[in-house]
Amino acid sequence: MIKRRNILTVIALLLAVFITTNVFGSSGEAAEGHDFAKTFLWIAIILIAAKLSSLVEKYGQPAVLGELVIGVILGNLVLLGFHGLEPIKADAIIAFLAELGVVILLFQIGLESNMKEMSKVGFKAGIVAVLGVIVPFVLGTWVVGPWLLPGLTFNAYLFLGATLTATSVGITARVFKDLNKLKTKEAQIVLGAAVIDDVLGLIILAVVSAIVTAGSVSAGTIGLIFGKAVLFLVGSIVVGQLTAPGISRIFAKINAGVGMKFTLAICFGLLFAYFASVIGLAPIVGAFAAGLVLDAVHFKYFKDPKIVADIKKHFKEHHAEENGVSEILHKHSERHVEEIVEPIGLFLVPIFFVMTGFAVDLTTLFNLKVLLVALGITIVAILGKLVVGLVAGKVNKWVVGWGMVPRGEVGLIFATIGKGLGVVDDSVFSVIVIVVILTTLIPPVVLNLLLRKETKEQHL
Amino acid sequence: MIKRRNILTVIALLLAVFITTNVFGSSGEAAEGHDFAKTFLWIAIILIAAKLSSLVEKYGQPAVLGELVIGVILGNLVLLGFHGLEPIKADAIIAFLAELGVVILLFQIGLESNMKEMSKVGFKAGIVAVLGVIVPFVLGTWVVGPWLLPGLTFNAYLFLGATLTATSVGITARVFKDLNKLKTKEAQIVLGAAVIDDVLGLIILAVVSAIVTAGSVSAGTIGLIFGKAVLFLVGSIVVGQLTAPGISRIFAKINAGVGMKFTLAICFGLLFAYFASVIGLAPIVGAFAAGLVLDAVHFKYFKDPKIVADIKKHFKEHHAEENGVSEILHKHSERHVEEIVEPIGLFLVPIFFVMTGFAVDLTTLFNLKVLLVALGITIVAILGKLVVGLVAGKVNKWVVGWGMVPRGEVGLIFATIGKGLGVVDDSVFSVIVIVVILTTLIPPVVLNLLLRKETKEQHL
Repeated sequence: MIKRRNILTVIALLLAVFITTNVFGSSGEAAEGHDFAKTFLWIAIILIAAKLSSLVEKYGQPAVLGELVIGVILGNLVLLGFHGLEPIKADAIIAFLAELGVVILLFQIGLESNMKEMSKVGFKAGIVAVLGVIVPFVLGTWVVGPWLLPGLTFNAYLFLGATLTATSVGITARVFKDLNKLKTKEAQIVLGAAVIDDVLGLIILAVVSAIVTAGSVSAGTIGLIFGKAVLFLVGSIVVGQLTAPGISRIFAKINAGVGMKFTLAICFGLLFAYFASVIGLAPIVGAFAAGLVLDAVHFKYFKDPKIVADIKKHFKEHHAEENGVSEILHKHSERHVEEIVEPIGLFLVPIFFVMTGFAVDLTTLFNLKVLLVALGITIVAILGKLVVGLVAGKVNKWVVGWGMVPRGEVGLIFATIGKGLGVVDDSVFSVIVIVVILTTLIPPVVLNLLLRKETKEQHL
Repeated sequence: MIKRRNILTVIALLLAVFITTNVFGSSGEAAEGHDFAKTFLWIAIILIAAKLSSLVEKYGQPAVLGELVIGVILGNLVLLGFHGLEPIKADAIIAFLAELGVVILLFQIGLESNMKEMSKVGFKAGIVAVLGVIVPFVLGTWVVGPWLLPGLTFNAYLFLGATLTATSVGITARVFKDLNKLKTKEAQIVLGAAVIDDVLGLIILAVVSAIVTAGSVSAGTIGLIFGKAVLFLVGSIVVGQLTAPGISRIFAKINAGVGMKFTLAICFGLLFAYFASVIGLAPIVGAFAAGLVLDAVHFKYFKDPKIVADIKKHFKEHHAEENGVSEILHKHSERHVEEIVEPIGLFLVPIFFVMTGFAVDLTTLFNLKVLLVALGITIVAILGKLVVGLVAGKVNKWVVGWGMVPRGEVGLIFATIGKGLGVVDDSVFSVIVIVVILTTLIPPVVLNLLLRKETKEQHL
């Protein structure tokens, strides 16, 4: 039970941090490295806020929802006249750490996923992805765009349609992870579909951009983009599978400690993320592929010497037989990659979700006309993804459908490019921002309900 | 044994990474978030290089030496006509991660240190620090400066003297850590002295800057700076000790998992680093104080539920008695703060040391006259710290003396400020850079020899 006194203390602490920020912020005594030190403060505030928000777990919600909501609150304190946290929005280092956070998250999720299980649902994931791209694109471009936003150019509708296609898998993946549902068939389908979805989104973005700038696009260009993306995904998985054991063996000879194991794993993830971005894919797709490739067996050359020594010493001192207890000891003697990477995730992943909430500008919701249009398009955006659940086969169709709903930052990237090309005007941009806000904040709540209901039914 | 074949494979791998960097770097196809992705690549290269360099451990050297040397090599590849890694030097995010890395390192070292042990050597550490500041300052300003660099203003000598005072504790601390010597009396004295040294350095920098700009400095200003620094150090330790248990208790009620424990610890370190920098101290001093304050007992409310469940299940199934084995299990059931923070250190600390090496510009060594002057001043810089070993009492005086030798980035900060004030000209700056290089690279080698010799003698 959480006592009221404790909640009050926490609020007082939070207030104290805010006051300190404000006082020190205005003192302006810039020491050497002061800018970096300020970023230390931002990280601490973001992480503490994220952990306070995990209170939502006590009310049955996934932690990620708390992080998003606390982010929205912190990012909009300016509406209450508090400007102390505004510099966070312009802090490029925080933005980087957030990006690194979602890369680490997808890497972790790749590590927890299994290539065999993934390939079993490969075909279904493909259908889910293709349909989940086509339906919102058609609805956005030819139906809801002209209907709710009359008088714009066809190119504007094209961009709106394109914006509605791209699933942001980070939020769904976090919900599955929070609720310990990553191993379910639904999770595998959504994760697989999200990877394919990203490739399709890349193609659509290229095609739409080419139509807007050059008036047309050649089949060769589309083929080239598609070919590069497929080559990267297939190539990275094949090359990764073939080289990982050898690389692991060589590096283990230099040093078989936990540090080497950690470094190899994390660098694998970072390099794949980089290569994905070179091809034009989202870095998270590369990180996910890297996690999928890495397998416990690749690290068989690594054992934590500290714990192994502890165990050996004990058995020697007590002349003990190797019995059931030793099994547990052995299990813990080898620190799994997942376990070593976990603290990096604890450090960086909340930064991504709090900053996703932080980027939500609540003032966009204040314009009633824009809000109503956005609500209409949001409904279409949700329906356009929910229908894909119908083709997902013998699984919980609602979970797959809602799992594909979040648009997040991918939609915003599309909208920003459209704005840069002069196709997306300010009001359409605001509409897209609201659609992204709603498709970001609603799915965690709905997925939580669906998944918990499912668990309950299984237990009956 | 490392086979030649394996070494060749590693070299081939390194070459492959370089070629890839170059090819992809020149393709210039900037996707969304490409800059961040490039930083992912830099991190991967730095970490892999750092781990390859841990080969030096096979030859009895501390890992930090390998990281520094590989950094020097990577940072000077431009001399061989390879420019692919030059962007790393201008990457503000890498610079931040390096700074965060040394903050985490000093936080870890604070965690491993014990307040009681530290206060036992407090008086000796104070004498070591004061003498270690006065001797190099006097030698630099009145003896070696006018002698080796004749014709400069008195203010230039003042700055040279000031530059020679400040110990960079990061390198020494890493050597002690690498060789598992953090608990020794010598390590405690050096760490304590480094903190006091930083306060004294802060005062000297303020005084020298005031003399250069205003011609004089008031006793009140000095008193104020000194008072603020002492107040921070004493205050943070007292406040930290008093509030940590309460904060820990409250947050454990929200969530008693490993994530909360980790977040609390890391935020404690980051906040102290920030507050130190607000006062004008180095962030690492704050991080060290934070680590010193935090104690295992503050986290008694946290237990890793996964491992605890494992253990309970086992004992239930086997109806086993709690015997000697259970002690080990219990020991591992509570993941210590040190252990959870370790992967963050594995991730970030090598970035600091590789980047410290990276910043070494070998071309400064090519000017024979500058080099000779720098060698002379380096000898004085080393002697000025070695004499403090004489007052360190019944310990290995050489270890304490050499432990205080590294100047690292603190000296460079002084030199940069002097350059900004127009007191330090280009040749003096080059001299200081070389002094920093030599006082950075020599101590790990010497300390390694001294500490290993000591260990051997104890075993005889």
